[in-house]
Amino acid sequence: MLHIEFVTDLGAHVTVDVESADKLLDVQRQYGRLGWTSGTVPGGGYQFPLDNEGDFDWTLIGARKWTNPEGEDMVIHRGLAYRRRELEAVDSRKMKLPAAVKYSRGARGTDPEHIREKADGEFEYVTLAIFRGGKRQDRYATPGGRPAPQSGPRPSAPRPQPVAAQPAPIARPVPVAVPEDETPF
Amino acid sequence: MLHIEFVTDLGAHVTVDVESADKLLDVQRQYGRLGWTSGTVPGGGYQFPLDNEGDFDWTLIGARKWTNPEGEDMVIHRGLAYRRRELEAVDSRKMKLPAAVKYSRGARGTDPEHIREKADGEFEYVTLAIFRGGKRQDRYATPGGRPAPQSGPRPSAPRPQPVAAQPAPIARPVPVAVPEDETPF
Amino acid sequence: MLHIEFVTDLGAHVTVDVESADKLLDVQRQYGRLGWTSGTVPGGGYQFPLDNEGDFDWTLIGARKWTNPEGEDMVIHRGLAYRRRELEAVDSRKMKLPAAVKYSRGARGTDPEHIREKADGEFEYVTLAIFRGGKRQDRYATPGGRPAPQSGPRPSAPRPQPVAAQPAPIARPVPVAVPEDETPF
Amino acid sequence: MLHIEFVTDLGAHVTVDVESADKLLDVQRQYGRLGWTSGTVPGGGYQFPLDNEGDFDWTLIGARKWTNPEGEDMVIHRGLAYRRRELEAVDSRKMKLPAAVKYSRGARGTDPEHIREKADGEFEYVTLAIFRGGKRQDRYATPGGRPAPQSGPRPSAPRPQPVAAQPAPIARPVPVAVPEDETPF
Amino acid sequence: MLHIEFVTDLGAHVTVDVESADKLLDVQRQYGRLGWTSGTVPGGGYQFPLDNEGDFDWTLIGARKWTNPEGEDMVIHRGLAYRRRELEAVDSRKMKLPAAVKYSRGARGTDPEHIREKADGEFEYVTLAIFRGGKRQDRYATPGGRPAPQSGPRPSAPRPQPVAAQPAPIARPVPVAVPEDETPF
Repeated sequence: MLHIEFVTDLGAHVTVDVESADKLLDVQRQYGRLGWTSGTVPGGGYQFPLDNEGDFDWTLIGARKWTNPEGEDMVIHRGLAYRRRELEAVDSRKMKLPAAVKYSRGARGTDPEHIREKADGEFEYVTLAIFRGGKRQDRYATPGGRPAPQSGPRPSAPRPQPVAAQPAPIARPVPVAVPEDETPF
Repeated sequence: MLHIEFVTDLGAHVTVDVESADKLLDVQRQYGRLGWTSGTVPGGGYQFPLDNEGDFDWTLIGARKWTNPEGEDMVIHRGLAYRRRELEAVDSRKMKLPAAVKYSRGARGTDPEHIREKADGEFEYVTLAIFRGGKRQDRYATPGGRPAPQSGPRPSAPRPQPVAAQPAPIARPVPVAVPEDETPF
Repeated sequence: MLHIEFVTDLGAHVTVDVESADKLLDVQRQYGRLGWTSGTVPGGGYQFPLDNEGDFDWTLIGARKWTNPEGEDMVIHRGLAYRRRELEAVDSRKMKLPAAVKYSRGARGTDPEHIREKADGEFEYVTLAIFRGGKRQDRYATPGGRPAPQSGPRPSAPRPQPVAAQPAPIARPVPVAVPEDETPF
Repeated sequence: MLHIEFVTDLGAHVTVDVESADKLLDVQRQYGRLGWTSGTVPGGGYQFPLDNEGDFDWTLIGARKWTNPEGEDMVIHRGLAYRRRELEAVDSRKMKLPAAVKYSRGARGTDPEHIREKADGEFEYVTLAIFRGGKRQDRYATPGGRPAPQSGPRPSAPRPQPVAAQPAPIARPVPVAVPEDETPF
Repeated sequence: MLHIEFVTDLGAHVTVDVESADKLLDVQRQYGRLGWTSGTVPGGGYQFPLDNEGDFDWTLIGARKWTNPEGEDMVIHRGLAYRRRELEAVDSRKMKLPAAVKYSRGARGTDPEHIREKADGEFEYVTLAIFRGGKRQDRYATPGGRPAPQSGPRPSAPRPQPVAAQPAPIARPVPVAVPEDETPF
């Protein structure tokens, strides 16, 4: 018998019994759809293989895809919106970094110090997940081989203009301040 | 079987077994009426849809409504009183924010740094909950469709004068220092 | 079934099963007599109604009354002694505070920042509990309607000279440094 | 039924079921012998009665006695060595402190701020346990009435030269830096 | 019955029931192979005997060996790569330290302060494990008496050039910045 600890959408701490280890991801998907999360986001964000990005099942971490009014790809996690950004590969004398996709948001005043990352100038941001390198894990995929319907699959869509990757990747400053809670709840 | 962790009104850490997921909110209401809470208030406060504000069931988070001697709407949570404030929508070139209702209190010396929010000048405050945007969740409502009796429903009461919303919403400074524990216990 | 988490007198983390919610306070009393505590002291101390002060059952929070060699009323909690102080009501233009009884001690070097309260000058103190206002809760009383024998009831005893209450109540500086562990273990 | 949480010698978090409260210390001894600990060392160290020092059962807190190559009395706890020091009683106008025995080590760079205690100058140290005053608790004794064999009993051995006790007791600076992990594992 | 708490590869908090204490290491190996970890890395890193280094079973702490593209010995733990370094024994007037093998990485901006260790200049690093002194514990060995296949045994391989040990061992600065997540996932 296993037991998984969640924080519910109401912030309550709830443990759910799980019959066996192979049922665990199912339970995470089931409660993740309600916005329940287990554990805290690792410092620097979750790390997943780049090849999982296309059909990643965000319910596994209690998140879901969302397209904001400007048509941008976002992910909602615990009520906060993270923007999708593509980072080009870096291959310089000083640094080698494969291409990546990163989901991040600007830091809020109440974010603890250790999850903030510095970008240019005074700007600080917080990363939910980074998809880079690695080998695809099929078990992280949305069941049915397709992303969740709310954003729709776009296997052949042209990739949006990538931002040049940097040693400390920069969260693109937005021309209009987007409050972090301007979300479809 | 599920298990929900509470902090009791005496500060004890107690876990309660819950038969199934659909009984969870009932258990939260049952123990929330005693002032028991589960989990910690998220940084920046709980986020709920604005349309839940009128009949929100505060027992879900171990809180209750209270009208202070000056007739102001307050909420008591873990022995501390939070004042209800209405924030107007903002629609400027720099910022778009829908109208909101916020429950907050002045910061205390013993509040940890990461829950304090800065307002004008030296003033710092702590938010319990903010109701803004979103889509009403019926399951958050007080059973019976009516707020708890202690404050009474006032569906048609004129809304109090709203405070102009700001990028960092300001907790209204009070002319007379109101101690945080001036509460009906 | 409920489960309550304790820190034992040896600092071990132990959970005890409790048959039903109405047995919970009994279990807290039973283990509290051994110095076991559940949860942490809230920032600023436990808040109880003033009318519970006379016969408060300190075992509920793993504490016990103690009279120090100077004949002063103290409470021992996790090996540290807290001094009883009476605070007069304040009724000024700036502040209204009902009378209170507070149990506090001077801060130690190893106390975390967020539990320290500032008094005059450099002095910092830590509050275990404050009894102020509110409505008496009979369930917090020592069973038998009498305080524990070690300090004895004193319903009609003249109250010790109260310290003038202040916005930030001052822990009375002691002329001779009293080490925090000068206790009957 | 009780449940005790341990951190194993490998740092894993493991809970062990205990049949009844009177079996608890036995379980702590059994797993403490493996170096498992429960809970964290209290700020300022564990407090025990002085009369328990001679035959204290260190397995109760997952520690064990050790004599270092210089013949000094040490205690190993979670891989770190603490040196035994005797502190004379203080009886001055400013301070009254009974004699004590203290087990402490120099602070390491990775020790969190709140467990460090200041001594003279820049020196900081961390206390595992202090034995002072109080009334002997037989249940803390090594079963058999004798200390564990590794250091051997020495009921009549002359006490080592005591260090003069001070308001903030000073960890004796060692002439040669003794790395904290110079231990028999 | 025992219960061990893990953080899964997805960051979820999951407890697994274990029949008896002697099955515990098996369960740690089983889930450690999936990258699950229990507990946090101790400040300053895990301490193991030097004689366990050759065939240490890294699955016990949810880690695994990895050889980076430059052919260097690394260990992957929670998605981060730690470099193997050999530290010579020190035997000076000021310090005596036996030879050791250390696995460490450069500090990241999101590492909490208390796990960072200072080296020369501004450089900070984080230690996963240090193998030094002590007595071999067979139960820490890879079952079968051989290291896991991914790096292969090398019982007679010449030891790489050791770095001179120092009071605060220095993490070798790398000429080319190696991002911490440049790993085979």
